[in-house]
Amino acid sequence: MPKVTAEHREARRRQILDAAMRCVAADGFHKTTMADVIRASDLSAGAVYGYFRGKQDLIAAIADEAVGGIGEAIDHFITTSARTPSLPSVIDYVASRVEDMTLVRGVDITRIGVAAWAEAVRDPAVREIAAPKFLTMRSRLSRVVEGLQAEGRWDPDADPNQVAVAALSLMPGYVLQRLIVRDVAPDQYATAVNALLSGSTED
Amino acid sequence: MPKVTAEHREARRRQILDAAMRCVAADGFHKTTMADVIRASDLSAGAVYGYFRGKQDLIAAIADEAVGGIGEAIDHFITTSARTPSLPSVIDYVASRVEDMTLVRGVDITRIGVAAWAEAVRDPAVREIAAPKFLTMRSRLSRVVEGLQAEGRWDPDADPNQVAVAALSLMPGYVLQRLIVRDVAPDQYATAVNALLSGSTED
Repeated sequence: MPKVTAEHREARRRQILDAAMRCVAADGFHKTTMADVIRASDLSAGAVYGYFRGKQDLIAAIADEAVGGIGEAIDHFITTSARTPSLPSVIDYVASRVEDMTLVRGVDITRIGVAAWAEAVRDPAVREIAAPKFLTMRSRLSRVVEGLQAEGRWDPDADPNQVAVAALSLMPGYVLQRLIVRDVAPDQYATAVNALLSGSTED
Repeated sequence: MPKVTAEHREARRRQILDAAMRCVAADGFHKTTMADVIRASDLSAGAVYGYFRGKQDLIAAIADEAVGGIGEAIDHFITTSARTPSLPSVIDYVASRVEDMTLVRGVDITRIGVAAWAEAVRDPAVREIAAPKFLTMRSRLSRVVEGLQAEGRWDPDADPNQVAVAALSLMPGYVLQRLIVRDVAPDQYATAVNALLSGSTED
């Protein structure tokens, strides 16, 4: 029964990944060892190594999981919206999805994000995993700006890639204020972003 | 000669702080020990503990140094400008000062920033040091928005504090893209921020 086997494998992989995410959210990437993950997963070392050859594999899978999940959600949000969503509404959507994922998975993925940034800054191998995630998110935001331009809702002379570089910053900035200052809720932050983007009265 | 003594003390304190900043920029806060700092400072353990009672003291001093230095520079920039600087020009100024400080001190303070965020997320004592730094920076940005409003350059109905919450995100977002994606120079980023703030043509 190959279908059951594939499902079983996926469930085991999920079990290990969830355990690893709990470890990283609590202790960061650097302090988390394969032994910690094996213990937290309630599986044998052999079983865990059968899915992930080592910590580097796990880091890549966690990054895919955390960023990939949000990325797919944004793509879905953009393609199913009647017209291009505004940048504040994209940010609002991302912030809400982050709260949903935190509830569903039982792991605060924003904590994993901060741990991943710190590790990417220290370890070139992790930076090689992280940099493309930033670029993919940037190109998503760039497509949103192009959509807004096509609908006459954004300066047609603006470079969508440039706008995306600055807009991308709004996501990690939210994560940090959410975790460290702890006074920003998703909808409040979207209102703040809207105030930032619509307030300037200079050309 | 109390004056010489004070200068001597300040030079020693500076020597220890520089050593600690090099350690943290390389290995993060969590991995850096007092023993590492003592070794890197070329001073005795007794001398180092005479200035900093422990790691928590050092973390607070490093945070003051890194964020405080930038904060004072912003205050100086704002008060010496003929009219209120625009938000993109404040961001441009901060990004340039970061490069200056990195050259002068020989330590990339943005790496220390990322390490500090990761530690603040993990350690409540560090979060208590970091949160007020975010709030102080926010209130600086809020004052800039108030200045722009007074000069008719920003929507008078906007809440300056809300604008500041979103504008603050532009700083850590720059730091992360600078360190991880490595394709954003200070002046390019200021152009990107300007494109983000001046592009929307909706209400």
